[in-house]
Amino acid sequence: MKILITGGAGFLGARLARALLDCGRLSVNGRPAEPVEQIVLLDVAAPAVLPVQPATDQPRIVHLTGDLSEAALLARAIDADTTLVCHLAAVVSGQAEADFPLGMRINLDATRALLDRCHAVGHRPTVLFTSSVAVFGGALPPVVGDDTAVSPRSSYGTQKAIAELLLADYTRRGFIDGRVLRLPTISIRPGRPNAAASSFASGIIREPLAGLPAVCPVAPDLPLWLSSPDAATRNLLRGCALAQHALEDWPVLNLPGLSTTAAAMVEALRRVAGDEAAGRVRFERDPQIEAIVGSWPAAWDDARARRLGFVGDRDFDAVIMQFLHPEMH
Amino acid sequence: MKILITGGAGFLGARLARALLDCGRLSVNGRPAEPVEQIVLLDVAAPAVLPVQPATDQPRIVHLTGDLSEAALLARAIDADTTLVCHLAAVVSGQAEADFPLGMRINLDATRALLDRCHAVGHRPTVLFTSSVAVFGGALPPVVGDDTAVSPRSSYGTQKAIAELLLADYTRRGFIDGRVLRLPTISIRPGRPNAAASSFASGIIREPLAGLPAVCPVAPDLPLWLSSPDAATRNLLRGCALAQHALEDWPVLNLPGLSTTAAAMVEALRRVAGDEAAGRVRFERDPQIEAIVGSWPAAWDDARARRLGFVGDRDFDAVIMQFLHPEMH
Repeated sequence: MKILITGGAGFLGARLARALLDCGRLSVNGRPAEPVEQIVLLDVAAPAVLPVQPATDQPRIVHLTGDLSEAALLARAIDADTTLVCHLAAVVSGQAEADFPLGMRINLDATRALLDRCHAVGHRPTVLFTSSVAVFGGALPPVVGDDTAVSPRSSYGTQKAIAELLLADYTRRGFIDGRVLRLPTISIRPGRPNAAASSFASGIIREPLAGLPAVCPVAPDLPLWLSSPDAATRNLLRGCALAQHALEDWPVLNLPGLSTTAAAMVEALRRVAGDEAAGRVRFERDPQIEAIVGSWPAAWDDARARRLGFVGDRDFDAVIMQFLHPEMH
Repeated sequence: MKILITGGAGFLGARLARALLDCGRLSVNGRPAEPVEQIVLLDVAAPAVLPVQPATDQPRIVHLTGDLSEAALLARAIDADTTLVCHLAAVVSGQAEADFPLGMRINLDATRALLDRCHAVGHRPTVLFTSSVAVFGGALPPVVGDDTAVSPRSSYGTQKAIAELLLADYTRRGFIDGRVLRLPTISIRPGRPNAAASSFASGIIREPLAGLPAVCPVAPDLPLWLSSPDAATRNLLRGCALAQHALEDWPVLNLPGLSTTAAAMVEALRRVAGDEAAGRVRFERDPQIEAIVGSWPAAWDDARARRLGFVGDRDFDAVIMQFLHPEMH
């Protein structure tokens, strides 16, 4: 089977590719598992780090570099043999807020073009789309439910919310078999800070562990809703495997998360790595970042996702251990 | 002041134009009332009936005919003098379900182009957009709240829901001053049946009153959420007048409605017009229409709209009287 991952050079895309290569076989949309023959990794840039073992993996990996909004690229990326499309590519929250046209072009127009391409190939590919806490905003209940209104307070959240609606309608009409996984903020991401408003949610742990100072731009007690990279990757695989009928008639799922705060994260850091590491975090509020991140839910009801086999993290100490010892997970 | 009404040849657009001409002056967005100098009526076709009195009204009315998705037409329709845009034009529910590309082009792309044009003129025009019960769907609470998730079960509802999100984000970013009024199903529309799935909600009263037979395609006890044309028109005017800050940070409003059923409507018809009229309605369920209309809410919480000065109808008997004696209202 042939799989497309957009954002394939990104952190989560590369993780998913690695997991698919390791699995070797994958069940998609409730069907029996089949061998993973080809993974197309589509991204604007070549991957910085993809843990590919040249001899065994390379024949199964194809890189496509280009702008997702180019029709010719999409036509190359999705064809009659494409069984599964994992659409992870996005202009992140801070960037979509700073550059409105760019966010609209990639997060909305290119997503729609991708869905139209999946429709056009005619065999109803399975499409997994990752959405975000950012679709929520405003006065929210302490725990957001499956039935809580989406009212984003960022352009990124707006574009994600629109894409959710498109996925749902294309699925209802039988153009695709779609599923939308709303991810909590991923922490701890390796590597460097990015333009996501939530970048600090990784930086305040990652940088101190590397002996570097870190600034937390939100209030210590601002609620955060997190998922570790491992849980997120396992949940993406689960999202691919899930049979369409298990989603009944609404394909949007709130994935399991961990409710915490920056202060609690720093305390976990102190427990795992000591006072010196914890002392490298300085709190200095940035109103722009706080306006975006503060509009997101503190937690949501993940019972539906857990019933469907999606998983969460035990606590944030375990998330730090996972970051420090990736080989153990 | 110059006002654009899209869908200006439609029933509600023409009603709104008539009301604006009669007012003579209008308060927009909380500002002091100003004279209505020009109303541009934009539609795909010339108006069938617009109760314009040539001598006094004509200089203030401009007709523009064409496809809303044409950039050149939008540029003519919205310019530096445009104070208010009432965007009522839409491909209706039944048609958007039957012709997916058409619905996407008009309800989504043209709406976005209109918003972009309003942004481009640079003076932040006030934009009133009409949305619908159709944004809701699936398992709904008995009374839909302001915080109930939008999960449309039709392409029309999907497109309206997407447009709501765009209006909200364009408003939040300061590109426009937007407000979205979610209208109940309008009943009783005069004239002929249209391609809306809810067309019967007017037809089962209008046709019997004209001595004609009518078919009701939904179960007698299927809940319906209605507004009379008079209430809708008054609410559109109120929506124009409303100051942006009154909407706080979410510009989508559920307008007041009347919760009823087809059976109760026929009983009201019997009380007002007698057994013979009521006997002209035959119930014959159409699964396609029932799937769409049955996914809509039975009622929603309209407290916020009522607090902001929007109005509802007393009962359906009064709605029939309004239809029979329009001059009294």
